[in-house]
Amino acid sequence: MRAQHHAEKIHRGGQVKIWTREEIEARFDMERAVRMVEEGFIAYSRKKVQVPPIQNFRFDSVGGECCVKSAYVQGAETFAVKVSSGFYNNAELGLSSNSGLIVLFSARTGKPVALLQDEGWLTSVRTAIAGQLAARVLAPREVHGIGIIGTGLQARLQLEYLKTVTACRDVHVWEPVAQLHTRFAADMSVHGFNVRVHETAESVAADANLIVTATPSREALLRSAWVRDGTHITAVGADGPGKQELDPAIVGRAGVVVVDSIEQCSKYGEVSHALSAGLIQARQLIELGSVLAAGGRGRDDSNATQITIADLTGVAVQDAQIADSVVSEVS
Amino acid sequence: MRAQHHAEKIHRGGQVKIWTREEIEARFDMERAVRMVEEGFIAYSRKKVQVPPIQNFRFDSVGGECCVKSAYVQGAETFAVKVSSGFYNNAELGLSSNSGLIVLFSARTGKPVALLQDEGWLTSVRTAIAGQLAARVLAPREVHGIGIIGTGLQARLQLEYLKTVTACRDVHVWEPVAQLHTRFAADMSVHGFNVRVHETAESVAADANLIVTATPSREALLRSAWVRDGTHITAVGADGPGKQELDPAIVGRAGVVVVDSIEQCSKYGEVSHALSAGLIQARQLIELGSVLAAGGRGRDDSNATQITIADLTGVAVQDAQIADSVVSEVS
Repeated sequence: MRAQHHAEKIHRGGQVKIWTREEIEARFDMERAVRMVEEGFIAYSRKKVQVPPIQNFRFDSVGGECCVKSAYVQGAETFAVKVSSGFYNNAELGLSSNSGLIVLFSARTGKPVALLQDEGWLTSVRTAIAGQLAARVLAPREVHGIGIIGTGLQARLQLEYLKTVTACRDVHVWEPVAQLHTRFAADMSVHGFNVRVHETAESVAADANLIVTATPSREALLRSAWVRDGTHITAVGADGPGKQELDPAIVGRAGVVVVDSIEQCSKYGEVSHALSAGLIQARQLIELGSVLAAGGRGRDDSNATQITIADLTGVAVQDAQIADSVVSEVS
Repeated sequence: MRAQHHAEKIHRGGQVKIWTREEIEARFDMERAVRMVEEGFIAYSRKKVQVPPIQNFRFDSVGGECCVKSAYVQGAETFAVKVSSGFYNNAELGLSSNSGLIVLFSARTGKPVALLQDEGWLTSVRTAIAGQLAARVLAPREVHGIGIIGTGLQARLQLEYLKTVTACRDVHVWEPVAQLHTRFAADMSVHGFNVRVHETAESVAADANLIVTATPSREALLRSAWVRDGTHITAVGADGPGKQELDPAIVGRAGVVVVDSIEQCSKYGEVSHALSAGLIQARQLIELGSVLAAGGRGRDDSNATQITIADLTGVAVQDAQIADSVVSEVS
């Protein structure tokens, strides 16, 4: 019934439905989005998704970058083209750094069916969902402290989305750009977290066994010597060439290295640095979708010293699925 | 003044302006569009355009294909992301085969500024403009007959856009799909052309020295033996892998081979077949933008037997420029 209803709407060939950010947030269903992003990762790792090469632009004179990510999950009603950008001088103009939109097209007729003017919000959320899924299969059973590197929007969302996978509320945070951390502790305490701001990443690593790095860094912020045995680290910042948050030695030391996309993470992402340094072999990489498809855990819970890594570069299938979760009919 | 005015509008960070197809056609200025597409080709050949790899989708079960082409001309106010599709079973649903839209984003802030719901119309027109520009520099001085292979929308537009580059109005047409040619002659006579429908492409080639091929063919339609000395041929159909309209021997025989993009035409397009057959060398290829930049002719008018070829695969800079020609302020 759902497919038929949906098809009729598309086949009318009518106007594109425009979704404002407010409408998207009002309609957004977190559980449904998590489920669909998870299904998307599984389909991706089963090679059931068309994901053409990412398009990248750079606007060096204004500190801007933009990427176009597109995906079609075989059998879905729609395919997605997502444009997202970060223009890091925008604050001087009183504008947000991140922008973006997603256009959904009918996979039966090619006609555009929905324009989601989410301003990059869905990209931020689907990245946090990926962090949640990675932590679900890789975080230690007993988390005694959550470490967060970075205090921007993505750092906040990652922390919020960890609430369903761990009961731990003790958070240790360090922000590489000193003036940015001011409101993080207060804001996150509203969500029930006890936040301690640290002076160094080393000190964060000493107090945490579940760490998320969420910065636009272009150099390693976390040294291997600082990371305790038994820690899981999710790195979400290295979403393009030249970006890096982790000492490659951490990746080399990890017993399990999960990636959102073997293809992308081999080219950039934390894994690419470890691969080119010869610290790991490509055959060691496991895709998040493969771990999720297996239905079990991604780490060896009997091995208390095992380090695990999730390297998340952002795959277009996440965008297609989260947009579809907002737009499609709930049956 | 113009740039400042434009910048103020963008910097407000307000809503995206939505352009319907009717608004686009009403605002469209052919001369301005031709000038801007020409400038785009020149900038492209001077390496002043960011053109990331084209994204392609295939929807085999419904005879559909879609591509995403994006471009930023260095120094422009905006950059463009264009999605265009052809779903060749749409007629059964009472829908047009072609669809598409273009989104323009501010190159200063990354914010979307305009959505052009042109339904693929601008893609069709910018392709016809490329044909006009190619004919301007490559068509013989004396055209005694125009040959058109194909009778679809693109064939019609190519013919219309040739009116400003030749006084010839005698048209010879052949359509590979027999039932499609019915209204072409009547429709084109309204534009002042005398159209004769032929039974074969061979017969068209015998009566024409300016030929345009505009079909979705996947095999050669025009044999070298049929093409008269002194003819110019513009081929616009081979816009993706597997497509072909010309016998590669024609390309090998040509004294001048102009391409819209050396990179794209080396991978697909008519030229790719001739390259892989060893009939031409990559160094013989000249980009249309380079010919236009030189300001002169692309053919040797003193050589009455010279064959010239323009292989047009469609470059994203055309999309960026034609969209900008509609949207930007006329100073």
